[in-house]
Amino acid sequence: MEKAVLITIGDEILSGNTIDTNSNFIASELKNIGIKVSQIFTISDEIETIKNTLAIAFELGDLIITTGGLGPTRDDKTKKALAEFFDDEIALDEVTFNHLKVYMERRGRQDILERNKEQAFVPTKSVVFQNHYGTAPCMMMEQNGKLCYSLPGVPYEVKPLIKDQIVPYLQEKFNLNYIHSRIVSVVGIPESILADTIENWELALPENIALSYLPVGTRVKLRLTASGDNEDLLKQQTEEEIQKLLPFIKDHVIATSEDKIENILAEMLTDRKLTISTAESCTGGGLAKMITSVSGSSRYFLGGVVAYATEKKVKILNVSQETIDQYTVVSEEVAQEMAEGVQKLFDSHISLSTTGVAGPGKGEDGKEVGTVFYTIRINDQEVTSKLYMPHLERVDFMDFVSQKIIQDVVSLLVNS
Amino acid sequence: MEKAVLITIGDEILSGNTIDTNSNFIASELKNIGIKVSQIFTISDEIETIKNTLAIAFELGDLIITTGGLGPTRDDKTKKALAEFFDDEIALDEVTFNHLKVYMERRGRQDILERNKEQAFVPTKSVVFQNHYGTAPCMMMEQNGKLCYSLPGVPYEVKPLIKDQIVPYLQEKFNLNYIHSRIVSVVGIPESILADTIENWELALPENIALSYLPVGTRVKLRLTASGDNEDLLKQQTEEEIQKLLPFIKDHVIATSEDKIENILAEMLTDRKLTISTAESCTGGGLAKMITSVSGSSRYFLGGVVAYATEKKVKILNVSQETIDQYTVVSEEVAQEMAEGVQKLFDSHISLSTTGVAGPGKGEDGKEVGTVFYTIRINDQEVTSKLYMPHLERVDFMDFVSQKIIQDVVSLLVNS
Repeated sequence: MEKAVLITIGDEILSGNTIDTNSNFIASELKNIGIKVSQIFTISDEIETIKNTLAIAFELGDLIITTGGLGPTRDDKTKKALAEFFDDEIALDEVTFNHLKVYMERRGRQDILERNKEQAFVPTKSVVFQNHYGTAPCMMMEQNGKLCYSLPGVPYEVKPLIKDQIVPYLQEKFNLNYIHSRIVSVVGIPESILADTIENWELALPENIALSYLPVGTRVKLRLTASGDNEDLLKQQTEEEIQKLLPFIKDHVIATSEDKIENILAEMLTDRKLTISTAESCTGGGLAKMITSVSGSSRYFLGGVVAYATEKKVKILNVSQETIDQYTVVSEEVAQEMAEGVQKLFDSHISLSTTGVAGPGKGEDGKEVGTVFYTIRINDQEVTSKLYMPHLERVDFMDFVSQKIIQDVVSLLVNS
Repeated sequence: MEKAVLITIGDEILSGNTIDTNSNFIASELKNIGIKVSQIFTISDEIETIKNTLAIAFELGDLIITTGGLGPTRDDKTKKALAEFFDDEIALDEVTFNHLKVYMERRGRQDILERNKEQAFVPTKSVVFQNHYGTAPCMMMEQNGKLCYSLPGVPYEVKPLIKDQIVPYLQEKFNLNYIHSRIVSVVGIPESILADTIENWELALPENIALSYLPVGTRVKLRLTASGDNEDLLKQQTEEEIQKLLPFIKDHVIATSEDKIENILAEMLTDRKLTISTAESCTGGGLAKMITSVSGSSRYFLGGVVAYATEKKVKILNVSQETIDQYTVVSEEVAQEMAEGVQKLFDSHISLSTTGVAGPGKGEDGKEVGTVFYTIRINDQEVTSKLYMPHLERVDFMDFVSQKIIQDVVSLLVNS
């Protein structure tokens, strides 16, 4: 059990209507138990296509996981394809039907429609993993020691099936190799210069450790992935390699364990017992959301204000009308006053502010789309910076700016 | 030029480290010019794998677009694979090198590293589309009338390349068939009952119109996709089919044109000249972000407060301490007072509030994870509801709740 192949079934992904987040989740969970996803196929909901792809997948991997195409509606054909591929019949499974009845009753629906009953029909050779958050069951088929799971496509049904049922099952059934990953986060050095700087270290890495460069905004994440049969040894080995790396780029490293910048911030603020608040204009709540996306953020995040309308910046954040008149609302000065205002309002150690134009379309004062001023206040010290990102779409702009600000806070805290 | 195949190259996606958003963007842009993505392959950055996948892709489609694997670092092998596959050599392209020099100079880097110069080496048969937001150029190869584009993997480099260069190029070069899509948004009726209700209508749809069911939270989106050579005719035809559909499910339809719920809200608020504000606890800014993700939202969104710490709910939103003591902070009563408080603070027609526990881990007052109370105030009318979603991960929970609230606002406005 080493290589997995994922098959995402559904026209809504091929049509660009929905982003496939299931594959990301599944790949990441499998990685933790040492199974590597070698390919992902995203295909349409057609019986022949599904069967052909299953055939290829069984050649490429030992574990196949399909998502999607199991709903109760007419455009779902996965189950039929499965039965045909495994030369099996579809029949009513009593256990699954009972589970479905209880599931529906709990949700206040007494009468089960014929169409729902169809959900309890599965290939006779399959082992069923019951779905506690939806009506389509997960089916497992075995062939020549290889396993194939079929899951529904709804992300919040997929996650518990993978995490609570499939991963534990695989862990128990197979004796798996370990994979251990570490992320080193580097800022203030372009990818190409970074690569030159650490070239000798990279070339000397042991064979069982792979290195990847993952640029995120203005940060480059170096990922070391080690594989082997002894987990403790892998941890020790990657730690040693990171210690060898640090002297080359010491001033640029902001974290060697946590991956996401908001988690790095969480660790720092919790360690140092610091609180934070936000005053947002053009990021529209995105900065607060990024900070609060971390579990436990209530320990350091006190709250924030989204002051979209100009007069609310005056009323709630105490920005002076004169400053706005003199410098316009998208200015260094307004960003500073917003940060000061929100720091007082929430009585926090650190405060962050943004004012800019996310676009498309020009802001009210004619400032160009993609311009943002942001202030970071730590106690009574403050730094204000400007970003100009005209090529980013609205939500990408909000995310990029939020990432950058949190990264800057981390850099400031590291060097303070 | 009908069928496209996308190839996403990069271990960071297979490892579950990064979500592939490029495919979604490209598929959606191609759909607009009548090109359908028939498969997406996500593969690792290995020369043999890339070559094998290119071979399959050329059999399946007329247009192949690869993303990723063109960075300046050691783990990028796409260009070599391209040259081998097309039986070509890689050589320095002067035009691209000059473009690169100007690009670097504009960013204040006078000296171009050897590693950057490598970016200007391309297969000699390729047509280069210059990248204005990064250093890796986009290369187009042609074979038997089929086209293959290779793009870098960074989303904000991919988007302008597709939108400003590749799509216009394809539009001009080929005489493409039109595809027209319409989304009908339905709420308050489960997918299976909906399918039964509209079965006769669905079976009578013309052959050139396909129907898909896309469940999003508690909303089901029905997508009609029509294809043909006359765009006006397609628009007329789908409109007619929607008019035939409406009598079956009239009370449940919240929109027949816009797709995303936040865009539906935008249309309604703009039409009716209504303003809105938000008071968030457990959604942590996610609700404000969802509302402000729509361009033009400054016309109706005045702002919001993220009151994470309990005492800030009292201080800023004027929630009474007695109410909190009596009912706990996660309660119907606190949600109501938050909505009232923020409505006054921002002087908006509509206000929304959330209080709950996003988890993991129990809230301070012992309320179970996944519980949220939310209030929607429209002028002096208010509705408070409860959701219990214990199976959702933190950010999914924030998104689900935000979606549901906006959907409820839309339903309330439709029926008022």
